[in-house]
Formats: sequence, structure tokens, C-alpha cells
Amino acid sequence: MNNQEALTAYTAAFVNELVLTGVCDVVVSPGSRSTPMAMMMAEHPNMKVHILVDERSAGFFALGMAKSIKRPVALLCTSGTAGANYYPAVIEASYSRIPLIVLTADRPHELREVGAPQAIDQLHLYGHHVKAFYEMPIPEKEKSVIRHARMTCARAVSTACTHPLGPVHLNFPFREPLIPQLDNEDLFKNEERNEKYVQIETGNWTLNHSQFEALATKLVENRNGIIICGLMDEEGFEEGIIDLAAKLNFPILADPLSQLRSGEHDGQLIVDCYDNFLRNEYARNYLKPEIVLRFGAMPVSKALSNFLKENHNAIHIVVDGGSGWRDPSALATEMVFCDERLFCESVSNLVPDELVNSNCSKWTAINEIAKERMLAVKDLKDMDEGKLFSLLADIIPSNSTLFVGNSMPIRDLDSFFYFNNKSIKVMANRGANGIDGIVSSALGAAVYSKPLYLILGDLTFYHDLNGLLASKILNIDITIIIINNNGGGIFSFLPQVNHPKNFELLFGTPLDIDFQHVVKMYGGTYAKTENWDEFHSYWSHIKREKGLKVIEVPTNREKNVIEHRNLWNSVSREIENYIAGQE
Amino acid sequence: MNNQEALTAYTAAFVNELVLTGVCDVVVSPGSRSTPMAMMMAEHPNMKVHILVDERSAGFFALGMAKSIKRPVALLCTSGTAGANYYPAVIEASYSRIPLIVLTADRPHELREVGAPQAIDQLHLYGHHVKAFYEMPIPEKEKSVIRHARMTCARAVSTACTHPLGPVHLNFPFREPLIPQLDNEDLFKNEERNEKYVQIETGNWTLNHSQFEALATKLVENRNGIIICGLMDEEGFEEGIIDLAAKLNFPILADPLSQLRSGEHDGQLIVDCYDNFLRNEYARNYLKPEIVLRFGAMPVSKALSNFLKENHNAIHIVVDGGSGWRDPSALATEMVFCDERLFCESVSNLVPDELVNSNCSKWTAINEIAKERMLAVKDLKDMDEGKLFSLLADIIPSNSTLFVGNSMPIRDLDSFFYFNNKSIKVMANRGANGIDGIVSSALGAAVYSKPLYLILGDLTFYHDLNGLLASKILNIDITIIIINNNGGGIFSFLPQVNHPKNFELLFGTPLDIDFQHVVKMYGGTYAKTENWDEFHSYWSHIKREKGLKVIEVPTNREKNVIEHRNLWNSVSREIENYIAGQE
Repeated sequence: MNNQEALTAYTAAFVNELVLTGVCDVVVSPGSRSTPMAMMMAEHPNMKVHILVDERSAGFFALGMAKSIKRPVALLCTSGTAGANYYPAVIEASYSRIPLIVLTADRPHELREVGAPQAIDQLHLYGHHVKAFYEMPIPEKEKSVIRHARMTCARAVSTACTHPLGPVHLNFPFREPLIPQLDNEDLFKNEERNEKYVQIETGNWTLNHSQFEALATKLVENRNGIIICGLMDEEGFEEGIIDLAAKLNFPILADPLSQLRSGEHDGQLIVDCYDNFLRNEYARNYLKPEIVLRFGAMPVSKALSNFLKENHNAIHIVVDGGSGWRDPSALATEMVFCDERLFCESVSNLVPDELVNSNCSKWTAINEIAKERMLAVKDLKDMDEGKLFSLLADIIPSNSTLFVGNSMPIRDLDSFFYFNNKSIKVMANRGANGIDGIVSSALGAAVYSKPLYLILGDLTFYHDLNGLLASKILNIDITIIIINNNGGGIFSFLPQVNHPKNFELLFGTPLDIDFQHVVKMYGGTYAKTENWDEFHSYWSHIKREKGLKVIEVPTNREKNVIEHRNLWNSVSREIENYIAGQE
Repeated sequence: MNNQEALTAYTAAFVNELVLTGVCDVVVSPGSRSTPMAMMMAEHPNMKVHILVDERSAGFFALGMAKSIKRPVALLCTSGTAGANYYPAVIEASYSRIPLIVLTADRPHELREVGAPQAIDQLHLYGHHVKAFYEMPIPEKEKSVIRHARMTCARAVSTACTHPLGPVHLNFPFREPLIPQLDNEDLFKNEERNEKYVQIETGNWTLNHSQFEALATKLVENRNGIIICGLMDEEGFEEGIIDLAAKLNFPILADPLSQLRSGEHDGQLIVDCYDNFLRNEYARNYLKPEIVLRFGAMPVSKALSNFLKENHNAIHIVVDGGSGWRDPSALATEMVFCDERLFCESVSNLVPDELVNSNCSKWTAINEIAKERMLAVKDLKDMDEGKLFSLLADIIPSNSTLFVGNSMPIRDLDSFFYFNNKSIKVMANRGANGIDGIVSSALGAAVYSKPLYLILGDLTFYHDLNGLLASKILNIDITIIIINNNGGGIFSFLPQVNHPKNFELLFGTPLDIDFQHVVKMYGGTYAKTENWDEFHSYWSHIKREKGLKVIEVPTNREKNVIEHRNLWNSVSREIENYIAGQE
């Protein structure tokens, strides 16, 4: 038996097992040490190989794709710092619960920590930020080694797909020569699997009947309640939560990432403007809840967080099928580790029909008033960030995906994107909320989620310019809206702005670059639209185009703060009048 | 005592201590959580703040700067994945022994692992890849806490600067509000230091007299010896090694990164063409050594590595002042952990004058023959990669710095850059040999090392395009030569090339992008030179320009392999004739 035979059998078994467990997309970055795995993957008829040179972008690309297809995506790179470039995406995957199978090629043991080229300590490279780490054996033809490779693959994929979903890391030491034997027709035959292979069945967390009953009783007895949904993307949850809310007659405060602000339901109980009206003290006092039922990640809105802190005496139930601890303000009175869909169904069945509630109509009334005021933003003549976000629900077609950048865009989406029936899926990287990797994440998602629109700020766009290569190399269609306020817009809302001395140096950080050059380099279509007529006309124009389409909206950081504050003040006045009229 | 007072005293003490320990450059990436430290650093009259948005580029920029000034450089970023973007640079710093002080801002304990935004587990974020990790305390006005902050700073800097040099990581949890009080004139007064502060004195490894004597005896008794110098950049080493070599009458096989291929010495004992002639079996047999004395990192040349493996019976002494284990082929017979300069001086003093040696002239003769043949590359009419490297010693001015990309460029430099008196400092990232972060590393070095020339391949240039922003934002002069063979040139030299099926997909990976757009975006001067006349005329032209200057040399991957092989064959023929004549 020779090395090449072992290398071939081992990598073929592993790659075949990946495909059998449902991992059919791999993002490969070129390198030498990863050659056996890369060549084997390219050889498998059911494995799709996406090649990207920059591993940081590749990591986020895989993350976005996994987010879109709700299945794990594999990553493969060579030895050395290549794998370290995945770190931001791995961490994001860990906190946003996205399954990734990270495969790093490594030097064999005799070339580690002896000054060999491109050799670094890759064991536990991602520390606690992966759900599992496996140091794989050197390829051998030995049946037990091949079987171990297959089993570890199955196990790694299963671990990645068990709640809370997340990344796993496998490190493969390979000795030279690195070329497998690919001219065998039976390369991916699967005797092992047919004979005595283990299939892994993973379940979900659930509660017993009396636990559900106790929770249902609490929700029924405290009639002044609200439901809060943060980032959530579980099959069947939408129907479940809407039924439960209807039975309880509780409003649903729906974060833009809850997937509840756009859908086929009637939206009657959806409160989507709370980020604006909860800034007002009268509204907060008027709407105090006795009980809070919360799902998903913590919502984006700081106004909502502050409102919850003020109501720290309320019963606060957090439901998490991933059994995390999503309670940044330490307000939870009950942590419920149960699949969210199962929770909604089970509790719904225990709630009597026709419950009355004193508060739901108050919430929806205030929500309507606030929304009407906020939508006045559409009358602005200037290129305004709020207006842009308020237009999204109008200009983006049904059944499309909207990927949103961090920092200001996700907050503006929260403030200005309201319920509609277009079934627009909203995505963002809200695990660690970084401005890194957004372009790549969106492009990864865009491979299977079509059409896809990305809206982000200029610093975020800059941070992942390398990501744009994917649209060119892999022929991906994407429409990108850059809100270019030439720097870090969010800081103008923070206390730092009151300290002008080094503000522009440390926080404003204007880049003063013209992105049209780089878009051109990657073969994209580009326009900077200086007014709304230009914007709309270019928007219609690019509908017919393919590939990378970029539309830049220049705005002004100072004016943006003023417009936002004007709107919030106007909402406040209106709400105060309304509440005064009710009393 | 209030929070702000504590925050101010604590960060002022830390920043002041940084400056006092000699860390006067910090690369800051904008963010909110790092506000107190960033504002304090910008306030210190002796701290130079370099702002870069992309933390990955910032990390490499700091690395390059530290390499250039041979003092630690600090990095500062906000919480979340920002710090994870430093990982590639931190790993490179660790393996290439460059001191970095990595400062990450973090959420306080009550906001960790509870779903708070932009909060990740930052403890031991870089695993084993830093020399030390310190979780800093929450700022308090308490004297012992302030003193602890100062002491930890001094200790961290000292650790980074002790052999083997490397990165350290300090993680700072900060609570809101994040704005320090900056209107105090005595912000950086330094009572602590004046009264009872500890200054840290770090020494170097050395041996005792009898150890030196034993080594000297061995070197004197085995007259057929060679000295090998890999990457090395220690003050005083050049003089030391040249004296020792002269006394022993041993040739010095000088890696391009040994800093010995360019200097004010006479270069008589420098062998700089071994990567070419050691490919030839006759030469290898003709030059067999009895004893090898090796310094610095393992040289780039694979031909040299193979030669050493063939001579595994030779006495093989590895001297390392950083007490590492630089022996990838497990050939060492003696590991000597001693400062290299001290070693050279001490052993020189023990070596008698006028030793004869049978081998030195053989090496230098073969070297001259090979070099003459290799320099025939200058006669090529086409845009050839080898020719470009052979021209560097002619066209780059004295006392400049040459930064070289990994993969093919460093190997071509090894093959084609020969001894000269121009005192050209050669830099590369040879800790982990990645193609990541090269642009930023060179720009960081270029802040203080002027003029600086960077030569690198198209994939490497692409990988760190974001790094170019530094030249625009921070007004750095740099001349960049891109060897654009549209993909991964090195793979055409590897066995992968014999498997054409997926070769271009997995290894060739042509990007097909025109870099002039992105250079223009960053305000640079650019030309693609299609022939040598254009090249030389543009080269003269840009001498007078400032800022970012890019010259692209288009080459062909297939032709490149053929030209290299032709040259090596021609060297072989010449050497075989010569050796036959000697016998």
C-alpha cells in the first residue's frame, strides 16, 4: 500500500461523507497543502466548489450561503495564516448560530513548531468559538482510519446542525506527495455506508406538559402582556407565533430580523414602529406591560431595551430553542429552553379562546400614529438616510432578500421598514454585529437567495471590498445600495460627538474615496445618485441588468442626525397629544 | 469618586506608561467601546495615532512598522470581531518574532455571553499565538488598580521585547459612559514613576566560556564547513558573522533576508547563488560539508534544504538567540541558545588566525560561475520575472528598503538578487509565509523606512487591496511592483500542474482584474509596462512622484517556468564542465 492510495481513499471517503450528510457546497481558497482535499472535492459530481482567494471573504461568503440555505457550508484552505483569516466569520457563525464546516489543511507533525514554512499551530485555532474541534489523523489505508474519517465527518456535520447551530473545525495534516489518484471510477462508492453505517438523528428541546401548562397559566393570568421577537429564522415559527399572539391578544413587537415585518399574514398584531415611539416617556408610561414573552436574539432597538429595563418588575420569559442566555439586561424571570415552534403550538393549545386584553389596542394605536408621522420622511427632498429605508418596502420586489449592514443601516431599517405583504426575507450578521465581511456574506447568500439587495454604509462597504470579487468570478447577481456619508455615521448619535477635538480623526474617519473605480474593476454597474429622481430612474434601469449593480446614495452625517431627531420629536408631540386625549 | 474620574486616571496612566516604555506608535481602528483609550492616546503629546478602518490591514501595518523601527507598536480596536481580524498579523508576528502590543476593548463582565451586541469571548482570543494575555481590570480610581495598569503595561512591553520577541494581548473591559476627562493639564504627570517605579532590564542568552570553547574547537577541527544565514535582523550581527567567517575561512550562504546580500562589507565570502547551483547533483557532490553553522530562520531555498538533508551526517549547529527550534528537517546536532552577535564575537576570539580551508574557494568559484550564467537573464527581451528580480539591485537606490511578497517573489529574489554594496534592507513576512497583509506590512514599514519598494504577485496584491488606503489616508510614499501573471504562479512549479483537469480552477485561479482602477481610487500613480523600455522610462518618471506609485509587470505563468528551467539547465551545464575540469 502506498501513500497515494491512502490519501485517495481517505479524502474520497471524507468528501463523499460530506455530500451524504448534505454538505454540497464548499468555498475553497487556493493553496498547496490543501491540494488532496481540493482536488477530491472538485472531482465529486455532487459537490459544488466555489473558489475565492481571500480567506476572510471566503469565510463570510460561506456564512452567508449557509444562512440562506439553512444547511452547513464547508470551507477549505491551506496551512498557515489562511485559516486565521476565517476567524471573524467563524466567530460570527458561532454567535449567530450558523453551521459551518471549517476544514484546514496542515503540515504533518514532524513539520510543526520546527521552523518549517507556512506551519503554525492550528490546533484549537478558533478557541472556544467553534462547537467542536477535531485533529484528523494522517491518511492511512487502514479501514479503521478511513471509517474514522467518515464518522468524524458525520459527527461534525451533526454537531454543526444541533441547536444552537454553529461552526466546527477539522484540521487535516497531509504529507507530500499531495496528489490523490483520481482515475478510479469507484472513487465515491460507498460500501461502508451501505453495510453498517450510522445515520444521526438530532431532535429539538421541548418541555413536558406541566411545564407548558404553568407557562400558559402565567400568560393567561397576566393580561397586560407583549410578545417580543428578535432575530429568528426557524421554519414554522411565523405561523406559530401569530397564532399564539392572536389567542393571547398580545401585540408582537417585531424586530426587522424576526421575519415578521414582511409576510403573507395580516400583520394586525405586528408592532413595527416601537423603536421610534418608545423614545417618548409618555408612551412608555402608557404602555407598561405586566408580562413580556421574548423570542430570538435581543432586538436591535436601544429604545426597546431601555423600555424593558424600566419595566424590570414585569414577568420576563425568554424562550430559546438554542438554550443560550439571551438576556443582556439581566431581566429574565424565566429562561425557557424549548424549540420556539413547539413552544408556540403547545402553549396555544392550552390558552382558552376569546381572551380580552386591555393593552393590545393601545400598542397598535400608538404604533399607527407613530408610523404615520415617521412616513412623513418620504416627503423630504434631500438624499436622506431615513427616507431611503422607508422606501425599501416599496421598491424591493416580493419574495426577495434584503441583506442589511451593521451600525446605522440595521438601526435605520428598524426605524423605517414597516409591515408589508411582500415576503421580503431580511438578513444581517447580528452574532457579533461587526462591519466586517458584510459584502461577502450577502454575496454568499445571493448564490441561492434571489434576487438579493444589500444596503450598507460606506465604511462597511470598504471593509469588505475584496468580497466583490465573488460576484465577478462566480457570476452572482446582487444589487448594492451604499449609503455614503463618508465615515462612521453612528458616532454622530453617540456622546463622542460632543468632543470635537479629535472626533473626525478617531470616529468620523472620512475615507474620501470614490467607489466607482473599484466597482468598475470588478465589472459592475455603478451610479452615484445625487437626487431622488436619479435614484428612481437608475433603480428602474438596473432591474434589467445582471451581475454586480451598485447604487451610491450620498448623504450627510450632521444633517442625518438632525432629520432623525426632527422625526422623533414630531412622533413624540403627536403621541403626547393622543395620550392626553385618551386620559 | 465617579466613573469618569476612574476611567481618566486609569487610561491616562496606561497610555503614559506605554510611551515611557518606548511604545510611541499606535494603529487605531475606529469603534465605540475603545473610545476611552483612543481619546487618551490622541491626547498624549508623544503618542502617534495612525487610524486605519480595516483591522486586518491595521494589524499588518503595525507589524510592518514594528519590523522597521525594531520597537513594539500598539494596536487598538473595539469589541467583537474587530480583534479577530488581527489574528493573521498576530500569528505572523509570533512566528517572525515581531513585538506587538494588541489592545482590545471589551464589554464589562455583566455584558458577556448574555446576547449583548458586539460582545464575544475575547479572553485568550489569540490562543497560544501571543506570548502573554492579560485580562485587565475594570477601571477604578483605587491606587492599586492604577498601579496595576501601569505595571501590566510595562510588563507586557518587556515580554514583547524579550527574545524571542512577539505579540502580547491586553483586553480592556470598559463600562459606559466611555468619555474620559481630558481637560486636566496634569493628565500624564507621573508621580508613580518618579517615586518607586520599576524599570525592567532584559538581557540576552549567552553561554559560558567552556561552552564557547567546545564549539570553537569543533569549528576549528572540521575545516570543511559552511555558514548559513537565514532571515536575521539583529543589530551588530553583520559585523560579527563576517569576522567569524573570515577567521574560519568558511563561506556564508546568505539568504536574501539575512541582510548580508547588501551591505558595506566586501562580500568576499558571501555565497548568494546557491539556490541555483545546488539544484545540480555534481555541484552538491563537489561541495559536501563536514560542518554546518546555521543562524536565523530556515532559508527560503528548497535546493539548500535538500542539500542539507543529503548531508545529514554533517555536524549541524543551529544558533538561536530566541531559543526556538528552527530545524524543519531534524538535522541539528547542536542547538545553541545564545545571542547571535555574542556567539560570533566569543567564538571569533577563540579561533586562531590564518586557518586554511579546502572548501571555501570551491564554493565561491562555483558561485561566480552560476551567477554569471544566471545574469544572462538580463538579456531576455520579454517581460520575464527572473529578469525583473535580477534588475532590482541595479534600479533600487542605496539605503532603501525592499519588501518582498511571499510565494514566488521571495523565491525569485533568492534566485536573482545578488550581493551589492547598496545597503538595501530586505524585508518579508516569513513567520507564516502568508500572502495576506503584505501591502499593509510594507506600508507600515514605509512610515519610517524610506524609500520603500514593494514587489509582489497579483494574488498577494489582491489579498490586501484594502491596505492601500493607508497610503492615501496617512500620506505614505511607496513604490509597488506587481508581477501580474494572472494567478498563482508558484503552482506551475509544483506537481499539481501535471493534473490539468481542475488546475486553473483550483490552483491557477486567474482573477482577470485590472488593478489600475483601484490604484486610481486610492489616489495612486499607475502604469502597466508591456516592455522593458516602458518599464525603465516609467521607473525614472515615478522617482519624482510622491505617495502611492504602482508599476505592473505582466508576465506569463507557463513561459516563466520554461525560462527558469532554461537558466537552471544552463547553470548545470556550466558547472558540470567546470567541475570536470577540476578533477
